[in-house]
Amino acid sequence: MRADRRRWVAPLVGMAFLFLTGFLVGWFARPSGVQHDHANDSKLLDFLNEIQADNIRQYLRKFTQLPHLAGTEQNLKLAKEIANEWEKFGLDSVELVSYDVLLSYPKPEQPNYISILNQFGNEIFNTSLTEPVPEGYEGVSDIVPPYNAFSAKGQPEGELVYVNYGRTEDFFQLERDMGINCSGKIVIARYGKIFRGNKVKNAILAGAKGIILFSDPADYCAPGVDVYPSGWNLPGRGAQRGNVLNLNGAGDPLTPGYPAKEYTYRAEQDEGVGLPKIPVHPIGYSDAVHLLTNMGGPHPPDSWKGALNISYQIGPGYKGEFSKQIVRMNIYTSNQVTRIYNVIGRIRGAVEPDRYVILGGHRDAWVFGGIDPTSGVAVVHEIARSVGTLVKKGWKPRRTLVFASWDAEEFGLLGSTEWAEENAKILQERAVAYINADSSIEGMYTLRVDCTPSLHTLVYDITKKISSPEPGEETMTLYDSWHKRDNWTNERNAPRISKLGSGSDFEAYFIRLGIAAGRARYTKNTKTERYSSYPVYHSVYETFELLLPLDCVEYGAALHKYTLNIEAIANRHPDAISRYNVSFDSLLNAVKNFTSAAQAFHQRLNELDRYNPLEMRMVNDQLMHLERAFIDPLGLPGRPFYRHIIFAPSIHNKYAGESFPGIYDALFDIENAPEQDKAWDEVRRQISIATFTVQAAAMVLMPLA
Amino acid sequence: MRADRRRWVAPLVGMAFLFLTGFLVGWFARPSGVQHDHANDSKLLDFLNEIQADNIRQYLRKFTQLPHLAGTEQNLKLAKEIANEWEKFGLDSVELVSYDVLLSYPKPEQPNYISILNQFGNEIFNTSLTEPVPEGYEGVSDIVPPYNAFSAKGQPEGELVYVNYGRTEDFFQLERDMGINCSGKIVIARYGKIFRGNKVKNAILAGAKGIILFSDPADYCAPGVDVYPSGWNLPGRGAQRGNVLNLNGAGDPLTPGYPAKEYTYRAEQDEGVGLPKIPVHPIGYSDAVHLLTNMGGPHPPDSWKGALNISYQIGPGYKGEFSKQIVRMNIYTSNQVTRIYNVIGRIRGAVEPDRYVILGGHRDAWVFGGIDPTSGVAVVHEIARSVGTLVKKGWKPRRTLVFASWDAEEFGLLGSTEWAEENAKILQERAVAYINADSSIEGMYTLRVDCTPSLHTLVYDITKKISSPEPGEETMTLYDSWHKRDNWTNERNAPRISKLGSGSDFEAYFIRLGIAAGRARYTKNTKTERYSSYPVYHSVYETFELLLPLDCVEYGAALHKYTLNIEAIANRHPDAISRYNVSFDSLLNAVKNFTSAAQAFHQRLNELDRYNPLEMRMVNDQLMHLERAFIDPLGLPGRPFYRHIIFAPSIHNKYAGESFPGIYDALFDIENAPEQDKAWDEVRRQISIATFTVQAAAMVLMPLA
Repeated sequence: MRADRRRWVAPLVGMAFLFLTGFLVGWFARPSGVQHDHANDSKLLDFLNEIQADNIRQYLRKFTQLPHLAGTEQNLKLAKEIANEWEKFGLDSVELVSYDVLLSYPKPEQPNYISILNQFGNEIFNTSLTEPVPEGYEGVSDIVPPYNAFSAKGQPEGELVYVNYGRTEDFFQLERDMGINCSGKIVIARYGKIFRGNKVKNAILAGAKGIILFSDPADYCAPGVDVYPSGWNLPGRGAQRGNVLNLNGAGDPLTPGYPAKEYTYRAEQDEGVGLPKIPVHPIGYSDAVHLLTNMGGPHPPDSWKGALNISYQIGPGYKGEFSKQIVRMNIYTSNQVTRIYNVIGRIRGAVEPDRYVILGGHRDAWVFGGIDPTSGVAVVHEIARSVGTLVKKGWKPRRTLVFASWDAEEFGLLGSTEWAEENAKILQERAVAYINADSSIEGMYTLRVDCTPSLHTLVYDITKKISSPEPGEETMTLYDSWHKRDNWTNERNAPRISKLGSGSDFEAYFIRLGIAAGRARYTKNTKTERYSSYPVYHSVYETFELLLPLDCVEYGAALHKYTLNIEAIANRHPDAISRYNVSFDSLLNAVKNFTSAAQAFHQRLNELDRYNPLEMRMVNDQLMHLERAFIDPLGLPGRPFYRHIIFAPSIHNKYAGESFPGIYDALFDIENAPEQDKAWDEVRRQISIATFTVQAAAMVLMPLA
Repeated sequence: MRADRRRWVAPLVGMAFLFLTGFLVGWFARPSGVQHDHANDSKLLDFLNEIQADNIRQYLRKFTQLPHLAGTEQNLKLAKEIANEWEKFGLDSVELVSYDVLLSYPKPEQPNYISILNQFGNEIFNTSLTEPVPEGYEGVSDIVPPYNAFSAKGQPEGELVYVNYGRTEDFFQLERDMGINCSGKIVIARYGKIFRGNKVKNAILAGAKGIILFSDPADYCAPGVDVYPSGWNLPGRGAQRGNVLNLNGAGDPLTPGYPAKEYTYRAEQDEGVGLPKIPVHPIGYSDAVHLLTNMGGPHPPDSWKGALNISYQIGPGYKGEFSKQIVRMNIYTSNQVTRIYNVIGRIRGAVEPDRYVILGGHRDAWVFGGIDPTSGVAVVHEIARSVGTLVKKGWKPRRTLVFASWDAEEFGLLGSTEWAEENAKILQERAVAYINADSSIEGMYTLRVDCTPSLHTLVYDITKKISSPEPGEETMTLYDSWHKRDNWTNERNAPRISKLGSGSDFEAYFIRLGIAAGRARYTKNTKTERYSSYPVYHSVYETFELLLPLDCVEYGAALHKYTLNIEAIANRHPDAISRYNVSFDSLLNAVKNFTSAAQAFHQRLNELDRYNPLEMRMVNDQLMHLERAFIDPLGLPGRPFYRHIIFAPSIHNKYAGESFPGIYDALFDIENAPEQDKAWDEVRRQISIATFTVQAAAMVLMPLA
């Protein structure tokens, strides 16, 4: 048991460490100058040695004793506790920053549930009000029952329709192939594939009066694995909480674009961004079986069938003797403006205090947050302690370090987005990088890194200097261990690095403000989990650089790949491409220019006078602003707060990042567009915007003046 | 005659010089360092001595021989000539940068005119097709006849309605007080008070089929002054050309937000930004008399009467025996995508090549452009020559200097806006200031400066070091001469400085990108012009600073004044203010914070180590980004490219700048709003946005990290 614990703690240390160390380079400079010497390198090792896996384990234990739902007393208490410790650790300043944002809670005195009604309107089945409390947590109060935050209130009644995952294509299929109209119905969708908020949006568009979300064992139980607590599969009465907003990066629904402070104008609640107009409620599969059994209507295609022992018929409504039964949702969840608290800690940069490296992760959890988010919180905490220890000894980072413990991530990334809004002007001029620490672990298989292309090289360099945490690989580097398990593709022989998508607090920093960003975690095996003895963990990172470790050549390669990908998608319509004069030549050309500019920039780095502080600053400014150059102030169509032209959260794929999202969205479902002329026109327009943006980014890298 | 010439040339030298010198400080540094010494100060004097009033006169003469309409061969030739000379002058690089933008020309073979038709549909009066060519220019071809660029084509016929200046309030008065409906009518408005594009917009909103614009002598002739060529009053057959777009800063109507390059997607012409849907045509007052005489309908209030010897009756249509007459417009002007050329010259900064000071002005003219723009072009040219001369001698500016000769300003600030769009990402990170040089002279009375508040102090400091150009004031400073003629207000004993409004090429730089900007010119006397002997001109500027000469304390004072102004406007509705809970306390508080931050910033400047290049750079970055902090990426309501929260061109006042435009527009006409709740809600929302923006700007000035 103890071995197991260390087994999962070790990767945490490595992962969170990964990016940060890259930006801690140039760390140990004296306040008055930019000198560096070999003595400093050994200080860097002091820092690495300071980090203790056992501390991380203890923090994780301590921070997961009680629920920490955003907006509760308990979570404010935790904020204060973290702030106090950061101060004690030796950070230069620590503050609680509050916002008054729209949150959503079930009513304790009037619980949410779903009923089957018989022909007389009597409730003949009701879903569970709570989940069974896990062993060891029996005495804990304040566990919020499963609910979908921001659900509309209401008691809609109606026939049930099963809509598979509730994706656009599912509703298309329902309407066109099966001839089923969801208007006035209550729909039931299984969780998975896309963000739940998009399921709700699709249900509303289809005219549904309410939507029930359930976790099907096909999606939430691995074969051959036991349910919790013996294994990590979801128990039948476990249900997935989660917000059902369609915020698209707006932050607090009532104050889109601006921080939710005392003075801030708030929209009326019925005009808030992304609030669903219908009731939504999540249930476990034990309850889902009751609702789905005896449904009538067509039998679904195989891809619509989950793993429950039922026929998954579509409806509407029930069959045979049950045909008079309908379903009623009883939802009393209510929205309320509530104060939330970020903890912001700073260590002032000694040489360039106006350049910020930000390490942030959320603190709020739906309940205990054992993985999400506290596996990240614990790592951030230990890094703060270690850095603080060095600061106490008189060392200073070159650039300012910002530590952030965000609140209300679970309610739509609210704490991080409000802080980004409040500090946008400063951040876009000063922020070098944002590193996100949410769940540091989502499995025990190997490393998973999502980051902007200019960080690829840094990630590879660092992982080559860290030992593998895997048993039997003590002499292998993390890079090799990772590479062995997850090679990128046929064309690139290196470990896979993914695009940043959505679903955590980097969003406002990366997608809205254009700050280079990344995250790392240990991820799960696609095969079943193996339990075995713990590995030994060592890490060494020895370089020292004044130059920001951002690689623009790598960005060029990524842009090239993305362009070929998107061109290939367009080429699925060869006739239209030629009829509507759609060409990717301009974009390919811009990417070529970008790549040349990046290579030339890289070349010039060799000629840099690294002892000339202004020269270094200018080159670093170019690197820092490269990511910013991909921001279009006009935003993506209909998503004004998603402004990164190269990356955006996918509408079509849960948590994934889309490259060239403007073009991609214009191409998606183009064959269903009501007017082909306009649809292809939009594709051309988006290609033109992408071309301009890549071209403008190339200009950032060109020789100054 | 020669005396007169020098009389008006002298102020030109001083004016254009004014801002630029402020930014040329720190100019003579060696490439490898930041040292400065007293020898450099004398080099600065060399520069001042290099400028020759006679050169300016010669350039003005040379550049005004022929018409230089945007998009013509002639104007391209001038671009090449200027580029060649800049190269010869010694600029480091000079390039022609082209864009393909929507321009608009009359058809040579099918001229525009307006007719009065009798009851049989015969033309019984037609307006002039051209203006009489001035003496000395008889042989010149390619003089474009008077027209309104971007007018819709068409031959609408209808009754005429006189709409005074065509302002919102004029149309209100017509409809509500006089009971006159403009729907289906042709309206005739006099030029003046508001931008002509807004008159057209108002006419369209009122349902008019066409609009005729005329120059009334009440607005375009000073009493007691002769018409050209004996005096400067407008002759009766002279007509004002001008575009009638409602661009609101969008640049090329077909590519809003993006540069009009080969690869750029273009909207269909009927979807272009700000293109009027009805014909528009300008006429002189000789023609206007014919159209207005014999009109029927109500007699107008006195404020609607111009200086023509007619009754200015409103219509619709003519009275008595003329009542069957109607008016027909015959407009064939057509829009076409046309290539335009900016000339961009650069002198690379020796120490901070990535910090740009931009001096720009347009080159295109409706015809000869004697004042607009060539009085500015000539000054820019002489500055380029003088600076180039010093560069040839081996001197270098500290920061990069950019010289720009913009094209197609007259068609909607197109050249400057497209370049701003193409370079937006770089400019917002690197541009220190934008100085505009359009008409350098619009009268002979005294100085007129429009600039951002952080430049106030610089303007005062410099004018205190330049001699007055006024006769009999040889021992007086320009500051004193100016102060004597135009004291600010009772509360401030200093020469008046105005807000930047619209109407020239600074717009995209200041209002969209938030770059500190200013312009200066000699302005006219409100009394009649005096012709007298010429003054002697001297200028001396001797300070040397590494610190950007931007004054944030002055910005604080300006914000305070603007807040009190806007609060006073709101207080005209005391009942509503209290009913709808409208308060300016949050804004006043933010302004107070801003002022404290500015004062503290200013204080800290005393403690700066001016020999620490990084420290200087960081402080300068704060100053540079202060103006940027006032930019809201979401823009003003309905005007996405006007993004400066403190300043925007006024909708209500020709070329003027509005402070707190969001709040102002929400308050304007609030009593006519259909729903008072929503209208006051919008006021509250705008106050909140202003509060946030001022607060965020304060943060930019706060201690780093």
